Amino acid sequence: MSDKGKLYLIPTPIGDNVTHTLPDYVIQILHRLDYFIVERAKTARHFIKSTNPERPISDLTIFELNKHQPSEGIEAFLEPIEKGKDMGLLSEAGCPGVADPGALVVRLAHQKGITVVPLVGPSSILLALMASGMNGQSFTFHGYLPHQQKDLSKVLKQLEQQSQRHQQTQLFIEAPYRNNGLLEMIVKSLAPATQFAIAVDLNLPSETIISMPIHLWQKRKLPDVHKRPAIFLLYAGKKL
Amino acid sequence: MSDKGKLYLIPTPIGDNVTHTLPDYVIQILHRLDYFIVERAKTARHFIKSTNPERPISDLTIFELNKHQPSEGIEAFLEPIEKGKDMGLLSEAGCPGVADPGALVVRLAHQKGITVVPLVGPSSILLALMASGMNGQSFTFHGYLPHQQKDLSKVLKQLEQQSQRHQQTQLFIEAPYRNNGLLEMIVKSLAPATQFAIAVDLNLPSETIISMPIHLWQKRKLPDVHKRPAIFLLYAGKKL
Repeated sequence: MSDKGKLYLIPTPIGDNVTHTLPDYVIQILHRLDYFIVERAKTARHFIKSTNPERPISDLTIFELNKHQPSEGIEAFLEPIEKGKDMGLLSEAGCPGVADPGALVVRLAHQKGITVVPLVGPSSILLALMASGMNGQSFTFHGYLPHQQKDLSKVLKQLEQQSQRHQQTQLFIEAPYRNNGLLEMIVKSLAPATQFAIAVDLNLPSETIISMPIHLWQKRKLPDVHKRPAIFLLYAGKKL
Repeated sequence: MSDKGKLYLIPTPIGDNVTHTLPDYVIQILHRLDYFIVERAKTARHFIKSTNPERPISDLTIFELNKHQPSEGIEAFLEPIEKGKDMGLLSEAGCPGVADPGALVVRLAHQKGITVVPLVGPSSILLALMASGMNGQSFTFHGYLPHQQKDLSKVLKQLEQQSQRHQQTQLFIEAPYRNNGLLEMIVKSLAPATQFAIAVDLNLPSETIISMPIHLWQKRKLPDVHKRPAIFLLYAGKKL
C-alpha cells in the first residue's frame, strides 16, 4: 500500500446552512485535516470556521489555487500528501472538480498515484436535474453558453435538436447578471412543446424551481432571476 | 400560497453507511413524513428503519412505483399532497429523478403546481465526475451503451470524438455483470492519449477510482469489476 496521504474532495454549501447540506462524516474529515488546497483562502477559512472546528484556523496550511498558475506550482501543493499527510480540496461553493479549477489538482493526484476520495455534498447541477422532472438517464451539462445574442438563439435551437435526437436533458448556466436576458431569449426561441425549467437559489430559503412547457412559460410573467444563482434546463424528447 | 403539501426528493445511500452520506437535515425531514412514493417498498422500509425513526414503519403510507404503471396511477399517489400532506420520493439508491422512474412523479408534481424540494445526497455520477479529474465544466451522462459488441466499439469511438470536439467528459454505465467485458473493450478500442477512468464501489470501503490515459491502462492488469457498481468516464479533449 501507498505511504502517501489521501486527497479528500470536500463539498461546501451552496446555500447558507452547513448542516442542511453536508453529512456529519464530511465535517469530521474536514476537522482532522491540516492541509487544504482551495479556490479562495478567504472563503475557505470562512466555511471551515462555520463548521465549529476545535482547532484555530491559523493552525491550518491553506494553498490557494490561481487560475493562471502553472501546473508545477500545483505539484508543489501536493508535497504534504507525498509525505503522508491527508489533504482536502475545496471549491468556492458546491463540489470540487465540477465546474471549478480543482479538476487539475485531481488529475495531478492520479498521476502521482494518490488515492482520491470524493465526499457527498451539494451540487446545483444535480439538484436542478432531480427537481426538473426531465430525463435523468441521459443529460448534458454545457457550462456557459455563448454571449452574442445571434449565436445564443442558434445555440438554443441546437440544444433543442440535440435533446430531441438523443432524448437528452440539456443543462446550462449564465453569468448571473445576464440571467433575465437569457430567460427571455429562451421563452421566445424554443418550440411551444419543449419542456423548460429554471432552478434558482437552490438550498436557500428563496429556492424556486419552475418546470413546464414553453407555451405555458409564454403565458406567465417571468420570474426576476437577476443576479440569483440559476441552472437552466430544457428537454425536447419524447415524454418519459 | 398553495395549500398543497411539498414533494421532497430524498436521496438514499449508495454505500452502506447512512451518516456518511446524508446530511442530518435530510434525516429530519424523512422522519416527519407520513407518505412516501418509492421504487421498491421493501428497500425503502429497510432504509427508513436504518435511520432509527421514532415511529414504527407500519404507521407510514408507502406507494410503490411500477415501471408499467400508467401515469393515472401515479396521479392517485399524489392525492395526500393535494390534501396538504408533505410526501417523500425515494429512489432505490442515490438521487431520485436521476436514472430512475421518479422523474415522472416530479413532472406530474410540477403539472399540479406542487412545490418540489430536492435534498442533498449521494450520486455516483457526480462523485465519479469529481474524482476523475476530467472536465466538469462540460459533461454528458449517457446511461447504458448498446450491448452488441460491434455497435459498442463504434459508439465508444463516437464518444471519443464527441469528447474531443466539445472538450466534454463522457460518462456511462453498464449492467454490472457485463462490466469486465466493457472495460476490456474500452482499453482495446480507445486512442492511447485518451483519458479513461472507472469509479467502482463508490462510498463503500472497497471504493476504487482509477483515472489515467489509455496507454497506461494497456500496460497494467485490469481490475476485476464484475458485478461491482461502476461508472465509466472518458475524456479526449485538450488538457485542462
